[in-house]
Amino acid sequence: MMRVLGLDPGLTTAGYGVVEEVRGHARAVDHGAIRTPLGPVPGRLAVLYTEVSALIARYEPEAVAVERVLFNANARTAMSVGQAAGVALLAAAQAGCDVAEYTPSEVKLAVTGYGAADKRQVQAMITRLLALERPPKPADAADALGLAMTHLHGRRLRALAKEAISTA
Amino acid sequence: MMRVLGLDPGLTTAGYGVVEEVRGHARAVDHGAIRTPLGPVPGRLAVLYTEVSALIARYEPEAVAVERVLFNANARTAMSVGQAAGVALLAAAQAGCDVAEYTPSEVKLAVTGYGAADKRQVQAMITRLLALERPPKPADAADALGLAMTHLHGRRLRALAKEAISTA
Repeated sequence: MMRVLGLDPGLTTAGYGVVEEVRGHARAVDHGAIRTPLGPVPGRLAVLYTEVSALIARYEPEAVAVERVLFNANARTAMSVGQAAGVALLAAAQAGCDVAEYTPSEVKLAVTGYGAADKRQVQAMITRLLALERPPKPADAADALGLAMTHLHGRRLRALAKEAISTA
Repeated sequence: MMRVLGLDPGLTTAGYGVVEEVRGHARAVDHGAIRTPLGPVPGRLAVLYTEVSALIARYEPEAVAVERVLFNANARTAMSVGQAAGVALLAAAQAGCDVAEYTPSEVKLAVTGYGAADKRQVQAMITRLLALERPPKPADAADALGLAMTHLHGRRLRALAKEAISTA
C-alpha cells in the first residue's frame, strides 16, 4: 500500500487530495481545500502550515506531491503561490515525507495521456480513474488528486522498469 | 528600546541583521548569513526555518522586516526566493512578531535618501549609520541590516507624525 498527499498550494485556497494505491488499484481517501482567513500574508501562511501539517499527521502519507510553480504565468499571484509552496514543502520535509514536484502539464500527461488536455478533460479522467460519484470540488482539490495520481503513476512505471531490467 | 530583525531571504544564502534603537540611536546587534546545505529544496527550507526561528528566539525582535520579492526580476531564482520568503514570514508569524515587507528601492530610499542608489552607496551608508568598523559581509547581511533600519526609520517617522498631529 502506498499513500500520497497531493497539494495545489495557494495563499487563499490550497487544494489537497489523498490517494492510496492497494494492489494496483487507486482510491481517493480524502480531498478538499484549505482556505485561509482574510488578513496579512504571514498569518495566512501560518494557517496553511498548520493545516498541511495536520493533514500529514492524519493520513501519514509516504510522499507529498506538490504543484511546481511556474513563474512566467502571472507575476502578481506567483509571489503568493511561491510563498505558499515554500510552507507546504517545509511541512512535508519536517514530517520526513518524500517530496516531489510536478508541473500542471506533467499532471495532465499522467492523468489523460495528453499534456495539453483542458481542465474539464482532466477532471473527467480523475473522476473516472478514482471511481468518484461526481467530479471533485473545488477545482484545486481535483488538481491535488491529480498530483497524487501523477506520483503514483510514476512510481508504477519506475517499478515496471526495474522489473523489466531485472528479468531481461 | 526597539529591536528589529531584517531578513533577505534566499534558498542558498539568506542574510540576517539585528538592529536595535535606544533613544534614537541605532546599533547593529548581530548580522550574518544563513547558508543551507546542497540538496533538495524541502530540506533546505527546513534548515532555513530552523535557523530563522532560532534567531527570533535568541534576539526576541518586536518586528521582522523581510525583503519583498519582486517577480519580474529573474523568473528562475524568483521561485526559490518566494519559497524561502514564505518560510521566513511563517517563522515570524509563529513567533508573534510584527512583520513588514520592503522592496529593495524602499530600503535604498530609507538608508541613502535616494531610491536608485547603487549597492556600494547603500553599504557605505549602512556602515556609517551603524558605526561599523567595516562594511558588513556578505552582501546579503548588509541588505538585511538595511531592511531592519528601514523599519526603524518608518517607525520614527510615524511617531513624529503622530506627535505633530497631537500638538497641532
